Amino acid sequence: MQRLTTIAEVRAAVGEARRAGGRVALVPTMGALHEGHLALVREAASDADLTVVSIFVNPTQFDRPDDLAAYPRDLEGDEGQLAELGDLAPDVVFAPEVAEVYPRPSVTRVTVRGLTDRLCGASRPGHFDGVATVCTKLFSIVQPDLAVFGRKDFQQLAVIRRVVADLDLPVEVVGAPTVREPDGLAMSSRNRRLGPAERRSALCLSRALRAGVAVARAGRAGGGPIDAVRVANEVGGTLSAAPGVTVDYVEVLDPETLAPPDATSRGQAGDGSPEAQQQLLVAVAADVGPVRLIDNVVLGDTEDEERLLAATS
Amino acid sequence: MQRLTTIAEVRAAVGEARRAGGRVALVPTMGALHEGHLALVREAASDADLTVVSIFVNPTQFDRPDDLAAYPRDLEGDEGQLAELGDLAPDVVFAPEVAEVYPRPSVTRVTVRGLTDRLCGASRPGHFDGVATVCTKLFSIVQPDLAVFGRKDFQQLAVIRRVVADLDLPVEVVGAPTVREPDGLAMSSRNRRLGPAERRSALCLSRALRAGVAVARAGRAGGGPIDAVRVANEVGGTLSAAPGVTVDYVEVLDPETLAPPDATSRGQAGDGSPEAQQQLLVAVAADVGPVRLIDNVVLGDTEDEERLLAATS
Repeated sequence: MQRLTTIAEVRAAVGEARRAGGRVALVPTMGALHEGHLALVREAASDADLTVVSIFVNPTQFDRPDDLAAYPRDLEGDEGQLAELGDLAPDVVFAPEVAEVYPRPSVTRVTVRGLTDRLCGASRPGHFDGVATVCTKLFSIVQPDLAVFGRKDFQQLAVIRRVVADLDLPVEVVGAPTVREPDGLAMSSRNRRLGPAERRSALCLSRALRAGVAVARAGRAGGGPIDAVRVANEVGGTLSAAPGVTVDYVEVLDPETLAPPDATSRGQAGDGSPEAQQQLLVAVAADVGPVRLIDNVVLGDTEDEERLLAATS
Repeated sequence: MQRLTTIAEVRAAVGEARRAGGRVALVPTMGALHEGHLALVREAASDADLTVVSIFVNPTQFDRPDDLAAYPRDLEGDEGQLAELGDLAPDVVFAPEVAEVYPRPSVTRVTVRGLTDRLCGASRPGHFDGVATVCTKLFSIVQPDLAVFGRKDFQQLAVIRRVVADLDLPVEVVGAPTVREPDGLAMSSRNRRLGPAERRSALCLSRALRAGVAVARAGRAGGGPIDAVRVANEVGGTLSAAPGVTVDYVEVLDPETLAPPDATSRGQAGDGSPEAQQQLLVAVAADVGPVRLIDNVVLGDTEDEERLLAATS
């Protein structure tokens, strides 16, 4: 595992591997790594000959300077965790300075209309433009065959998938399952900021999503489509019942377009073919004490439902 | 020379050449080829093992549907001209349908702030976003080592250079000199729409630029910086004196940022080092009868000045 800090070094390392016929994987991160990130790296490394983990706190995706300044940075600690992955440790940690990535003010932006104006995009203007732009840059620098992102940041994953499709970028985007604590809480760098009572309250997010799955399963058992409004009500009710929790949003959307299900075909009730199971994204965001948390599940994605239900709280 | 119409075919052809160690060049065009385009192809083919000419009338860079509908299309004629290049004919003509390039509504856009809001961008809203986006797509599809653009569309060239720099795209952008008729008129698909009297009036563009060069040379001979205001006045005066000509703009700008020279360092008077010669873009646009024409020269770029002066009218 080697730390590289310049674009030229990364291009040289990747070019060498590629000329030898190797498959290259990229896991873009902002550092402050936890078990969720490590799962992404394992997924990448098990499918590639050379794995690059980028650690870069990208200033252009922060809409507030104080948020950027407060973002945790611990490169040595991150590298320690990555090294412990042993055979699945990345070959390259790409940890550039800001001036290496943005040597001049970047006037070029990659923007994605529609997908970015709801959910977390509604309260974080410009955030997903910053994400889309820096990921396009990282894809250009590393030129990976595959890039692995977590499904917990579902909107980010959807935005990246759409950028890759719309710009014909030659990279396969892999969405890796959300990693959860044994009691169901989705792993996040922010969880460490939760006090004991807040930590208990935070379980309401995964509990609410499980309630949504139950509604969907009851609907499917009855042979009908999922009732998106009933799901939203059930999830919202569970969230609101938790002490010290302020709901930001509860949304039931088409998982590809992130549009309301009645505005899309994929989110509609069955198209008549028995194998086409309706899929609906349920995404939640809530402030638990001072900490903003997000979580999601895709109804109709049996594996995603099962992973969520496997957690017990 | 083979015509390919799908992205998969182009990727296969280019991938084969690249695995054999070949250098790949791309010349993006919208067809209706003339000698100016052919010069770009010669430039590309003489520096590459595999040359791709794309012929695609990109709908997203047209701000007016009637302009898009009226755009000339003559694929067979274009291919005939390319074939006549003999040894320098391209290996691949990539001529996709619109549905191949945009299989779904493209919600992703590559935008470039600042560079795109003046000159031709001022009267064609969204035009350069469309250009930047489709060129990013073509670079992703072909993955060329170099891409050749004409200097006549100087703003387009500056926008593409900036996109490539800002997004770290692994492609070398080459700006090829403007090809002129013997009397100085810059080659353009639009020239064929000029009547005999308009054709004579159209010479005012290159004549005006030569007047600008004369002012700059007089300034340099006197040891001082170029007087941008005097250049603009001289160029504008020459343009306005021509019959049947309506001036759209006369601008004297920094050739890299396309900002006014007093707002940049490159456009300033000498920085004290004798080898750093001040460079200023002089760009003009004018309606000659019903035809909008553009032309430009970079003062301080001796070769560009000489090419312009070599034409006699």
